[in-house]
Formats: sequence, C-alpha cells, structure tokens
Amino acid sequence: MNRDDLFDNINKKSSFLCVGLDTDINRIPSFLLDLEDPIFEFNKRIIDATMDLCVAYKPNIAFYEALGSEGWRSLEKTIDYIPDDIFTIADAKRGDIGNTSALYAKAFLERMNFDSITIAPYMGKDSVTPFLIDGKWVIILALTSNTGSFDFQRIMSKDNKALYQQVLETSSEWGTTENTMYVVGATRAEDLSYIRTIIPDHFLLVPGVGAQGGSLSAVAEAGMNSHCGLLVNSSRGIIYADNSVNFADAAREKAKGLQEDMENLLEHYI
Amino acid sequence: MNRDDLFDNINKKSSFLCVGLDTDINRIPSFLLDLEDPIFEFNKRIIDATMDLCVAYKPNIAFYEALGSEGWRSLEKTIDYIPDDIFTIADAKRGDIGNTSALYAKAFLERMNFDSITIAPYMGKDSVTPFLIDGKWVIILALTSNTGSFDFQRIMSKDNKALYQQVLETSSEWGTTENTMYVVGATRAEDLSYIRTIIPDHFLLVPGVGAQGGSLSAVAEAGMNSHCGLLVNSSRGIIYADNSVNFADAAREKAKGLQEDMENLLEHYI
Repeated sequence: MNRDDLFDNINKKSSFLCVGLDTDINRIPSFLLDLEDPIFEFNKRIIDATMDLCVAYKPNIAFYEALGSEGWRSLEKTIDYIPDDIFTIADAKRGDIGNTSALYAKAFLERMNFDSITIAPYMGKDSVTPFLIDGKWVIILALTSNTGSFDFQRIMSKDNKALYQQVLETSSEWGTTENTMYVVGATRAEDLSYIRTIIPDHFLLVPGVGAQGGSLSAVAEAGMNSHCGLLVNSSRGIIYADNSVNFADAAREKAKGLQEDMENLLEHYI
Repeated sequence: MNRDDLFDNINKKSSFLCVGLDTDINRIPSFLLDLEDPIFEFNKRIIDATMDLCVAYKPNIAFYEALGSEGWRSLEKTIDYIPDDIFTIADAKRGDIGNTSALYAKAFLERMNFDSITIAPYMGKDSVTPFLIDGKWVIILALTSNTGSFDFQRIMSKDNKALYQQVLETSSEWGTTENTMYVVGATRAEDLSYIRTIIPDHFLLVPGVGAQGGSLSAVAEAGMNSHCGLLVNSSRGIIYADNSVNFADAAREKAKGLQEDMENLLEHYI
C-alpha cells in the first residue's frame, strides 16, 4: 500500500486509527478458550467489529511468540484475515546484520505479507535497508514513550543533537516518505513538534495515546501534516474494553469514540 | 547456567566456541530435503558432530521465522535436542516496552528454555530488565561488527563518550556479571581492549571471527579475562564447511580446528 492509498483510506474512513492486536491468552474472554484457536477467534471478532473504523492493524509479535509455534499459526491466520485494503504493521522491533534482516523481511513482509514492520535502529543502515522492499514500509523507532527512552534516545551528541534526532536525520536518507515511517511516542507534544521540524512529511506511528497518557488532540495539533501523517495506535483500550461475550461490541464502541474524535481533528487540521 | 558453570565447561572442553545455527533451507545438503523436518535434521547432525568441541549453540532466530510456524517448530525441536550442559543463546535482538519484553522473555527463556537472549538496547532499561530472570542471561548489543555500527554506535556524546560506551556503562548497572553479557564484534581488537577497561569482568559474545575477518588470537589477547570472558561464535564457517552427505564431519573438522586454537590461547592467557 502506498502513501496516497493510505491517505485515501484515512479520508474515506475519517480515521487515522491503528488497532493494536496485543492479544493475550490470559486476558481474552473465557468462552473463547473452548474454541480451537482462541487467539485467532478473538482477533477475528475484533477485526469484524472495527474494520470500518480503523485504517491499520498492528499485531504485537511478542504476544504470539510467547505461545510458540501455535501462536505463530494464530498470527498467520490473523494476517490472512485482515482485509487487503487495511494497512498492516508487524510490531516486531527487529534489526540485525544485513543477511539476517533480509530473513526477517522475508518472514514478515513476504511470507506473511505484512505491509510494514517496526525496526530498532541501533545496528544502523545495513540492518534497516533489507526491509525496504517494493511496496512495503519500515517503521523505525525514533523516540519511544517508555521510561527507558530517557536512557539513550535523548543523549546529546557533541554537535548538540539528541540520539533520536540523529536517527531521524540519518535514517530518513536511507528511504523516502513513501517507504519509511517512524515510531514517536505521544507522551510529550513538544517532542512531536520538534520532530516535525526534522521530518515534516513522514508518517508517524504514535503509540501511547490513552492508556499511556498521551492526548489525541495534542498529537494532532503537533504532528498532523497535509497527508495526515499520523497513525495513532490504541491496543488495550480497545480490545480489552470488556471481558464478556459482548467484548467485540465494546471494542467497537471504544474504536468508534476514537474515530469520531479523529474525524473532528481531520476536519480541523486538513 | 551460572558463570562458574560456564567457566567450568570452558576449562573442561578447552574451548570457548559458540556454534551459530544459522540454518538456511537453501544451503543445507539436498539429501536432507527428503526428510520430514530438514532444518532440525541438519541441526541434529551438526550438534552431534560438535557438542564435545563447543560450549554454546546460538540459533539465529530469523532463519527459523523466515519459514513461518514450521520454522518455529524446527527451532523448538532444536533447543530441546541441545544437551542441558551446553549454553544456549537465542540470537533474537529483541527489546520492547516492559510488558512486551516480558512476553519475549517468556517465549525464549521460559517456554523454549534458552539460557540467554540477545537484546537491542535502544529502548532502555525497562526493555531489558524483564529478561533478567533467575538463572538466565541477557546479551546486550554494544558494538557490532557490521558496517552500520558506524551510523549510531560510535556517535560521541557531549561528555565524550561513544554511544556504545554509554550503553555499556549504563546497562551494566541493571544487572551483574552473573546475568549480563555483551555483543562485541571482532573486527577491531583496539575496541575490544578499550571495552575491557569499562567492563573487565563481563562475558562477551564475539561474532565476526573468520568469515567476517576478525582474528581469534587478537580477540583473545584483547578480550580474555580470568574467567575467559569470551564466547566466540562461528556460524557459516562451521555449518556450511561442506555440502555433501559428509557435511557433519566437515563441520566437526572446522570446529576442531577452532577448539585447538582456543586450547592454546586458554593455556597462554589463563
């Protein structure tokens, strides 16, 4: 899916919502546990209930790997089930030497046909470029929203650049706005404004709205560009809104609330 | 496995060799392709042929994920097959926010019972500490041997520290020499000497000897400490030494050569 298609979807659905499929066997409604593949059955119902309200799904790969080869099968079934016109993100935080990154690219972007994958930049260019496959996207960690983001990402260099700024400046040369996005946490709107001075045109994947305390309107004010330029993720706030047989309806309600807020923000800023 | 056990094994076998199981379906001998699980059958024969010569095995997880859920099953069978007294490393380069890292820890250190996992440090403390489980090890990327290591790892901070130095100093406070190791590439012995001034006692996992050009004796001279403190990895140089039905014997020959060099170095330096 290219940038124009993504922007078209955002306009069509009046939404820049990404639903995070952090599907935890210990948190899904118990009635699903009697089915053959409870993880997939949960995802299927969440997808059915939210697909008209969101433009992206983001399975967090750790939740599937924690279940071994069975979890991997649930992931394969989930990605096959997501409609082709919805952007898919393998939240995998991979990155290794070139030949190894090429195999991760094969696993996620070719074999499972995800549209994109999240990448940790520590190992540099040859760990990232193997993911730059035609029609696919890399989503590079820039400034994350966890407390550990203060350990290294904000270290100031001799020429007065924070590491995350250096990551943005250097890695934005490896690809284009058509194949590279960045993960930018929503915890501080002033960071987002600053980041927009470095990369005005790239799409940003923004976690941390809701459960982690970021404000959607502050994110839109600081981060939106003429192509929207934002995918805002919500995981737990949507998929675990309710734990009964009505969980999918409750998830839809939560997604609908976010979509309506997003509709207002799109009208206001674009 | 604790540090003393690992050092005992190194002394017993006169070896600090780690065999990298970068098992590629396109490179293994063709006669194996007729078997039900060629990847596992290859690994089994490599393990049988080298287990008395090495102290660690390191499956590179990308090679298994590239094969989907079947690859994951081959990995599960491989880790189950490795004898308990040999240190196992999940070369996974993971790292995410706390609750997600905890699930990766569950996947590799609990469910599959690896002794250790490699971690990318970009997201900081809460992305690493969930892997510090009793009896297990984290192996944090410090200075890698790929060309991309020059992009960020060597950026100098305002107080004149390279990023990799800051990673060593900061992250070595999160754990101890009993549960934390570092990945340090072998391409420059002077880097290794410098790193030993920062972390004299930690074990280092050293890739890049052989195929990537590092010299074993230079690594030992610069990096060995009183507990040996080195696990030197060789992957392709051993496992793809030969492509015929005799591949396991050829792998043994290569591993034997490295073990004999290591025996001389251990006698010289310890």
